[in-house]
Amino acid sequence: MKNILILPGDGIGPEIMAEAVKVLNVANDKFDLGVELSHDDLGGAAYDRYGVPLADETLERARVADAILLGAVGGPKWDTIDPALRPERGLLKIRSQLGLFGNLRPALLYPQLAAASTLKPEVVSGLDILIVRELTGGIYFGQPRERKVLDNGERMAYDTLPYSESEVRRIAKVAFDMAMVRNKKLCSVDKANVLASSQLWREVVEEVARDYPEVELSHMYVDNAAMQLVRAPKQFDVIVTDNMFGDILSDQASMLTGSIGMLPSASLDAGNKGMYEPCHGSAPDIAGQGVANPLATILSVSMMLRYSFNEVAAADAIEQAVSLVLDQGLRTGDIMAEGCQKVGTVQMGDAVVAAL
Amino acid sequence: MKNILILPGDGIGPEIMAEAVKVLNVANDKFDLGVELSHDDLGGAAYDRYGVPLADETLERARVADAILLGAVGGPKWDTIDPALRPERGLLKIRSQLGLFGNLRPALLYPQLAAASTLKPEVVSGLDILIVRELTGGIYFGQPRERKVLDNGERMAYDTLPYSESEVRRIAKVAFDMAMVRNKKLCSVDKANVLASSQLWREVVEEVARDYPEVELSHMYVDNAAMQLVRAPKQFDVIVTDNMFGDILSDQASMLTGSIGMLPSASLDAGNKGMYEPCHGSAPDIAGQGVANPLATILSVSMMLRYSFNEVAAADAIEQAVSLVLDQGLRTGDIMAEGCQKVGTVQMGDAVVAAL
Ligand SMILES: CC(C)[C@H](C(=O)O)[C@@H](O)C(=O)O
Ligand SMILES: CC(C)[C@H](C(=O)O)[C@@H](O)C(=O)O
Repeated sequence: MKNILILPGDGIGPEIMAEAVKVLNVANDKFDLGVELSHDDLGGAAYDRYGVPLADETLERARVADAILLGAVGGPKWDTIDPALRPERGLLKIRSQLGLFGNLRPALLYPQLAAASTLKPEVVSGLDILIVRELTGGIYFGQPRERKVLDNGERMAYDTLPYSESEVRRIAKVAFDMAMVRNKKLCSVDKANVLASSQLWREVVEEVARDYPEVELSHMYVDNAAMQLVRAPKQFDVIVTDNMFGDILSDQASMLTGSIGMLPSASLDAGNKGMYEPCHGSAPDIAGQGVANPLATILSVSMMLRYSFNEVAAADAIEQAVSLVLDQGLRTGDIMAEGCQKVGTVQMGDAVVAAL
Repeated sequence: MKNILILPGDGIGPEIMAEAVKVLNVANDKFDLGVELSHDDLGGAAYDRYGVPLADETLERARVADAILLGAVGGPKWDTIDPALRPERGLLKIRSQLGLFGNLRPALLYPQLAAASTLKPEVVSGLDILIVRELTGGIYFGQPRERKVLDNGERMAYDTLPYSESEVRRIAKVAFDMAMVRNKKLCSVDKANVLASSQLWREVVEEVARDYPEVELSHMYVDNAAMQLVRAPKQFDVIVTDNMFGDILSDQASMLTGSIGMLPSASLDAGNKGMYEPCHGSAPDIAGQGVANPLATILSVSMMLRYSFNEVAAADAIEQAVSLVLDQGLRTGDIMAEGCQKVGTVQMGDAVVAAL
């Protein structure tokens, strides 16, 4: 039995999740996956139902699940509530409480969608980068963090950016392992010319590298990485970096493809457990209209089958089905192009099911 | 009298500085600027001469100068020395000691060089963004920062990201003032959904905004800003952000133009004093070959005349001269394009002098 917890979340979350679940159910029958689903809320939806963005009982359900499939959280409806109860706090808490430190964010350009990028075709065609982001440490969770009033009456606030050897080592290992099954190139991004934490980061990554002699390791400062992603993104294979830099660079990289509605992501713990979600947000502006692109969530299902359950055949089949519907010229609004057929969320999900 | 300290620095620094000084001298004669120059070393050159990347006597000279013109610092020659003595430590120290908190980094696409961008012409043509980066606070200088060994024997290291009300207020004022003389649009970039320091940042920026009712203020999370700079960079006029985010986003934005060899920058204190330097680095790989592009340094002279000395006519004249040599089709290697004439560093400097 594979127990999967479904958290549709907010905004377009429920719509895209419905399609992903449809695809998952079909794959379950076809490949005899033994999948069992349960459902709960996270983010704004959880706040509305439980009064908190992640209820204890939901966290418990997530703990016992073998994998979690998440839609997206957040929206203007919860912009004015107590900051400690905002939708994204639920996301940060589930990451941290479940120890989902290994965040995999692929930036992959689908050949069928090459025109969607704002970059010139020769710069991005064939782009296939994997960003490995540390997700449960660094400045996101560092203590102390405080806001106070100085003796002179001025307000001030500070955050702390800590990294320990073991935190760096485990994320570096994930990144080297990924590099080994890809093109064996790893670029570690830090700001070691300024930050103490980055100096340790670089040192530990070097140590881990000894166990991966086949992987070509390089180091790059984060400002240069942001430049190189614009100048020549295809120079990268796998990038590993800390929580904050990974937040920035993975969003930048995903936008290079021009089709962020296509990109899934995984957040893994030390075992096989993972939370899978699209890279895009909850898009409240188009929620409820049936026009959102469900493919990133459907591809998150594929990632889940691959990474948490080692169901390679089923994962491949879903990816091929997605590629096929693109070949057929079906497009949601976000990836629409001349000569293609515009479809809604449900039609797109149905097309993937049919292709499967 | 205008006392200007010239710090050529390392790598291509001396070559590009020679051309900038040539242009400055001609402007001095033509516009009767009353400029007086002194020279010293910073970075690796200072380490070689004084044993430190910024000597006390150099700092003193910088203190009494009315403005500073800097080439660039750093290079592989100093990669293995004590980290505390590396070239960039000299740069950080001079910024901090002189209180140069206001860093202006324009990302401007010259119409003559539109083809150099890796982005599609329609996405970047006419691009004109000004990034205002806080330069003497935040995680670059925050205390405590430490490396230690935990009780369990693990190494760990941490940095601190502090901001006080007055630090945010003064940089916000610079940004609003800049927006007032531009298109009256300011986007403040932070990570207020995660960081305590960002929450204070946002609050204080809102307070300063009350004094600038004509400026349209927006807030954006840094990850989204990195995406929007790829997706639709022309939506921005002025961006204000903290030291670390500004480091990353300004490099990303400058690369959108495809011609980082053209971009100057200013680092200003609370008065009129400023340090001016090209956005690009010391490019050790091409140092000494006479092929580096001196235009960013020449445009830094123009920025200096404008911001520190209010010599608008002279500043405009230099910018027009640069535009003219581009119209003439002269190009250094970094911005070379079909149908243009390739020139070296000195030829390019001479052409600007002639155009002036
Ligand atoms: C919502 C926010 C807290 C989150 C983050 O910064 O990690 C998001 O931007 C992401 O990248 O998943
Ligand atoms: C050299 C380095 C310390 C510096 C910085 O990070 O500020 C540089 O990248 C810059 O942006 O001027």
